[in-house]
Amino acid sequence: MNILLTNDDGVLSPGINKLADILKGSYNVVVIAPDRERSAVGHAITMHKPLRIKKIKDEESLKIFHANGTPSDCVKLGIDVVMEDKPDIIVSGINDGFNLGTDILYSGTVSAAMEGSINGFSSIAISLEAGSDITDKALLFIKKLIKSVAKNGLPKNALLNVNIPNISDNYSGVKITKLGYRNYIENFTRRIDPHGREYYWLAGKVLENINEEDSDIVAVKSGFISITPIQFDLTMYSLIDTLKSWDIQI
Amino acid sequence: MNILLTNDDGVLSPGINKLADILKGSYNVVVIAPDRERSAVGHAITMHKPLRIKKIKDEESLKIFHANGTPSDCVKLGIDVVMEDKPDIIVSGINDGFNLGTDILYSGTVSAAMEGSINGFSSIAISLEAGSDITDKALLFIKKLIKSVAKNGLPKNALLNVNIPNISDNYSGVKITKLGYRNYIENFTRRIDPHGREYYWLAGKVLENINEEDSDIVAVKSGFISITPIQFDLTMYSLIDTLKSWDIQI
Amino acid sequence: MNILLTNDDGVLSPGINKLADILKGSYNVVVIAPDRERSAVGHAITMHKPLRIKKIKDEESLKIFHANGTPSDCVKLGIDVVMEDKPDIIVSGINDGFNLGTDILYSGTVSAAMEGSINGFSSIAISLEAGSDITDKALLFIKKLIKSVAKNGLPKNALLNVNIPNISDNYSGVKITKLGYRNYIENFTRRIDPHGREYYWLAGKVLENINEEDSDIVAVKSGFISITPIQFDLTMYSLIDTLKSWDIQI
Amino acid sequence: MNILLTNDDGVLSPGINKLADILKGSYNVVVIAPDRERSAVGHAITMHKPLRIKKIKDEESLKIFHANGTPSDCVKLGIDVVMEDKPDIIVSGINDGFNLGTDILYSGTVSAAMEGSINGFSSIAISLEAGSDITDKALLFIKKLIKSVAKNGLPKNALLNVNIPNISDNYSGVKITKLGYRNYIENFTRRIDPHGREYYWLAGKVLENINEEDSDIVAVKSGFISITPIQFDLTMYSLIDTLKSWDIQI
Repeated sequence: MNILLTNDDGVLSPGINKLADILKGSYNVVVIAPDRERSAVGHAITMHKPLRIKKIKDEESLKIFHANGTPSDCVKLGIDVVMEDKPDIIVSGINDGFNLGTDILYSGTVSAAMEGSINGFSSIAISLEAGSDITDKALLFIKKLIKSVAKNGLPKNALLNVNIPNISDNYSGVKITKLGYRNYIENFTRRIDPHGREYYWLAGKVLENINEEDSDIVAVKSGFISITPIQFDLTMYSLIDTLKSWDIQI
Repeated sequence: MNILLTNDDGVLSPGINKLADILKGSYNVVVIAPDRERSAVGHAITMHKPLRIKKIKDEESLKIFHANGTPSDCVKLGIDVVMEDKPDIIVSGINDGFNLGTDILYSGTVSAAMEGSINGFSSIAISLEAGSDITDKALLFIKKLIKSVAKNGLPKNALLNVNIPNISDNYSGVKITKLGYRNYIENFTRRIDPHGREYYWLAGKVLENINEEDSDIVAVKSGFISITPIQFDLTMYSLIDTLKSWDIQI
Repeated sequence: MNILLTNDDGVLSPGINKLADILKGSYNVVVIAPDRERSAVGHAITMHKPLRIKKIKDEESLKIFHANGTPSDCVKLGIDVVMEDKPDIIVSGINDGFNLGTDILYSGTVSAAMEGSINGFSSIAISLEAGSDITDKALLFIKKLIKSVAKNGLPKNALLNVNIPNISDNYSGVKITKLGYRNYIENFTRRIDPHGREYYWLAGKVLENINEEDSDIVAVKSGFISITPIQFDLTMYSLIDTLKSWDIQI
Repeated sequence: MNILLTNDDGVLSPGINKLADILKGSYNVVVIAPDRERSAVGHAITMHKPLRIKKIKDEESLKIFHANGTPSDCVKLGIDVVMEDKPDIIVSGINDGFNLGTDILYSGTVSAAMEGSINGFSSIAISLEAGSDITDKALLFIKKLIKSVAKNGLPKNALLNVNIPNISDNYSGVKITKLGYRNYIENFTRRIDPHGREYYWLAGKVLENINEEDSDIVAVKSGFISITPIQFDLTMYSLIDTLKSWDIQI
């Protein structure tokens, strides 16, 4: 069974390498990940510059490549250029930091898994609470989840978004959730650089008390591993009939 | 009434400037757009570098700024830093080239409008067939649509994705659509650079014959202006119960 | 007579456009400049990415192009790709801010002129005190200097580095100078970003009291326009014999 | 004795790591190098973006850092931020590929050493023929050279530019040289990308037959290790009097 691994923290980050290490015994693992950190790139792809690929490890059941592209580029390159056989499962992660609620739209980690799903492959995005150790328990869960996906399959157009809190402290179990809503206030910090020029850092404070019990955001706060099923058809079907009644013909 | 305009082709592109010109008579228009082309950046945001803003026009009802960020950064900066009063409507475009079907996930134009919607504002993404002139008819339609959105409002979490074909030739009317599916084959072209190093261009061929009559992709091919209502909750609710039955607790 | 203009402030900056405007009456002027600011890039060239050129003005005696490369790239592209006839003179500037002493090593403006000289063309780098207006007097001087270079020629491997102080106040004349020495202390300002990560700004304070009367640094301080003849052979001939006596054969 | 090592091939390249390994026995070695390849950046410095430093090794006599800046940034950061004691010698390299003649103006490797020299430290740039193995003989030579520099010192404002050919084949000895002249023809290759857009690669052919016997270019071709003493005062003193006779006063 072939697994394609990617991430947005870059090929050298501990998350993807620990994952590769525990999977290479049971699967043929191909890692293809960005050559440097590519966080918050969303679903960016590289159309106007050349992409370059470099192989940096070539073992029996673990091959590692890096590319000068985004996580979504890496998934495309993995499927179309690097892998001899198509992947059975695509895993993006383990990201250092949650990818929850509406914030997944900014996430390179989730977008890479979504790219896998768009191309027809069962895909999983995995994120860990920022600064947590990657515990044996977390790795055990991930292995179990991958086995389940391999066994049960995923519907066409579906992927899984997994967030693992720091479960060394208080672990409540695995919970299936919906996406919550991440609202920020005071988005920017204004500063003056040493040359006297004004600039802004994006650095909002999260307002999260608006979220419901069954959201991913509340789940991880309560010590649950959260699994949210995701799809990428953004059509708001419920609005179609309303719009048909608008007077907008010309 | 205040309108915030942005795009991903950059502040100098004809699309956004024509739009600003026809709107500034009827609305207070603030343009804040990337200082250069930022296509295919998806929903990227800039967290780890300073953002800088520069005002380049300051008329009574038209102010133009550029920033060194992505389209989504520009929307955030527009709302939080640049505009004195909040926008009533956010318009992203006019993009030079369609944003259709699953490809909207890669689109800076659509992501900017989505950013507007996430922040609670009525938002519209507008794209024109690549290489078409921006005709008076297209501008007339856009003005009419903006008036309709102002009058009718949009539900929370909804935005509109508009694609305008080259309607100088054969124009069939305005159609409300769902997102189609863009499938690509032969994604990469492999080349050797003059220094002897291998590289890849992303450049797939579209397979589109798989799309249904009521999709945006088929609509624009048939000469319709397509309006697709979009939402940004990616949860696949239909899969939640299935996942609950999986054996994945640890 | 053909003049190639470039700069490192980008094709939209006032300096290069004013220069183009006053020269286009007397010369065939081709502007090719970076599509955005490229200060402090030194003598960088772009070997591993594609360069793209775009024509944005096409008048009888003034053609303007921009490229996605460095100032040195622009000079190469101007000579080899853009211009039908070779340039008689290459001018880089007018830069917004001095390029003095050892700091010219970091300067995109001076490096572009040096690139012109390496390729065998008479080249001039022109910089103006930061924030000064581009006065008629300054423009008059530049026209006179270009005429002199055209008439007298420059020796092979020589270029001119010109710095113009704010001569509206107290103007002392034109002075031929040598390069001074720019020494900085407290090079970096340490800061913490809003995400809690440490970073550094390069922002040293200049120590200049070490410079001699005939240096460019002292000249502009005293109200002189400074012209320094520059060459690009960095060999320190005086050290060759000393090194020959070292015991370093293996 | 403290040695600061940097390069422009990035902190992971074999050249700098081999060098660190053979030096750490005899010196306190601090490596600070770019986090990725930064070739052909010339003497670029980073003024308008934050610089970040990360420590990735912390042994008794070998500390390794990377930064998101250019080679010249790294030297400045090494001296001012990272090292507790000032360096006695700064070494830039071992670069994968020669840095010869006028091409050193484009070289991040040589510019980093020049930055060291500008700041008052004895500095050496070391480059190896592209694709050569880093032989024991080459490393032996480098150790010997560093010992000589430590013993003899270098004059203020001087640095050494060292180029080592593939000396496994035919080794002729060490030669003190002057900089040659690198002339290129057919600088650009014109191509069309898969989206139909034109672009250019910088990829000229070298014309070298114009160089003299005592140049670095001829030396390495003849199997010599070349050492060229370099200085960074670019004033062309011989032209000062000529310019004084020009009629350019206003």
